[in-house]
Amino acid sequence: MHINDINTAYNRIRPYIHKTPILTNKSLNILASANLYFKCENFQKAGSFKIRGATNAVAMLKSDKIKNGIATASSGNHGAALSMAVSNRGGNTKVVMPENTPKIKVNNVIRNGGEIIWCKPTLMSRESVLKNLILNTKAELIHPYNDIRIIAGQATIAKELLEDIPELDVIISPVSGGGLLSGILSYIKIVKPEILVFGAEPIEADDTSRSIQSGEIESNITTNTICDGLRAQVGTITFPIIKNLVDGIFTISEKDIIESLRLILDRMKIIVEPSCSIALAAVLKNKNKFKGKKIGIILSGGNIDLDQLPW
Amino acid sequence: MHINDINTAYNRIRPYIHKTPILTNKSLNILASANLYFKCENFQKAGSFKIRGATNAVAMLKSDKIKNGIATASSGNHGAALSMAVSNRGGNTKVVMPENTPKIKVNNVIRNGGEIIWCKPTLMSRESVLKNLILNTKAELIHPYNDIRIIAGQATIAKELLEDIPELDVIISPVSGGGLLSGILSYIKIVKPEILVFGAEPIEADDTSRSIQSGEIESNITTNTICDGLRAQVGTITFPIIKNLVDGIFTISEKDIIESLRLILDRMKIIVEPSCSIALAAVLKNKNKFKGKKIGIILSGGNIDLDQLPW
Repeated sequence: MHINDINTAYNRIRPYIHKTPILTNKSLNILASANLYFKCENFQKAGSFKIRGATNAVAMLKSDKIKNGIATASSGNHGAALSMAVSNRGGNTKVVMPENTPKIKVNNVIRNGGEIIWCKPTLMSRESVLKNLILNTKAELIHPYNDIRIIAGQATIAKELLEDIPELDVIISPVSGGGLLSGILSYIKIVKPEILVFGAEPIEADDTSRSIQSGEIESNITTNTICDGLRAQVGTITFPIIKNLVDGIFTISEKDIIESLRLILDRMKIIVEPSCSIALAAVLKNKNKFKGKKIGIILSGGNIDLDQLPW
Repeated sequence: MHINDINTAYNRIRPYIHKTPILTNKSLNILASANLYFKCENFQKAGSFKIRGATNAVAMLKSDKIKNGIATASSGNHGAALSMAVSNRGGNTKVVMPENTPKIKVNNVIRNGGEIIWCKPTLMSRESVLKNLILNTKAELIHPYNDIRIIAGQATIAKELLEDIPELDVIISPVSGGGLLSGILSYIKIVKPEILVFGAEPIEADDTSRSIQSGEIESNITTNTICDGLRAQVGTITFPIIKNLVDGIFTISEKDIIESLRLILDRMKIIVEPSCSIALAAVLKNKNKFKGKKIGIILSGGNIDLDQLPW
């Protein structure tokens, strides 16, 4: 991707998104022996960074592409963000969602004007329901991550982060389908390649880590993780970018994910999803590696179901 | 209180506190049919506004008053704040706390260098334990609210709020012992008296409302409220200020307090105590009164025990 694609995406989406704040926390800095800069996409419109890519993709559509509606499959945050972006252009969104999606993510889709089409919580069901939906409605597909327009939109998070904290040594981002991580890499490794960029994923959904090791895309063996946003399979467009540019992938246990979630809630007084507390866990499990560094942590979203806290 | 007392307090405490942000939220504005400005003291040092008054009171002590230690009785936030303020001056703090205090508030006192002296959860036990403690140790007492130095410190929250949002029509603050509300009134009713200032308290701990009605201090009949920060008795110094200046006290049901707590967590992605979600509940239960107004809402603290969420 060319840097201009990201800068153009930023100008395109800027009126529709928040420039989210960067928070710091003294007690977590002490705990980590490092300086942590939390990029708070949990405060983003529709509750996660996904509005960046969705807005960029929808803004690039010609009007006649919108008239039959937009379709996607999403465990939640992309669905809500896409619904908001499409509603802003006066269109309709149909979101294929697994039946076990947290209620808060279901409600977010509905509140932003989307319609939910249920599927079973398997990749096969999701794909067949989506395929039939597109056949029947002629809706335009916008994939949650395996789409260059989406990646360019997510990349804008790195642009904002560097604007505010240019002296960063390290950035750690969660990785699932890879839209966010490949976007961050596409920006950082051109603009300031000396910054180390790492991904973090659950041990229970470690496809990206294993794919990097083997050199080709490996499937998730389990997706038995509390991180409902990190169960997707790394994509055919996102993976080559990650493979070429990433400085490493950390795999994190459920216990460590939950402990770091609790730390963020208790110490920072903000609500985040376990899907992003994983990046703090990666720092705390690798203290020697990161001692004294200035570390950007992507808090990717805040749509956690408070009826289902893991303690 | 003279306005200079508050301005002097602000200059005194400024290096030791955060100027907390003011957040807005589109979906809550729509729900309230008003413009809400949330003053986020949940992000304050030691997790609540209490650090303002505690820092002011401790800073005004001569060194020889600190050498025997500082004592107080507190359900939590004042205890933690006082411990931090005293630690900053190199002294020791003893905090008399009821045995049923939420664990997060106990831990906050300890993390900030305070020592806990347990009492039974009754006014009588609290007072006798504190009295014995002071007799035995010659520690200096700093009361959580019935102290003019504390009130001047808490008043600085109103000063910051007006600096950022000078066009406010209304301010709503929780009221318990009355330090916060009497401080806000002392500032606002001199600097910009046309702003209406209301208190909000639980129906289950409605001493201030009944005291205003009868014209003299009435006792709490129950303190059976989820708001562990709002069970105190309005004070002999705070009450006359409130009685003379307040525009009204709202009493709120437990159900409405919990619903507004959930709204703040789900929509704003920040963590607050039920003791301050009560101010949002006051707006939502009185929509006609506040329609179209610019309303400052004091989010007084964020020390909620996430093991004990009320749903």
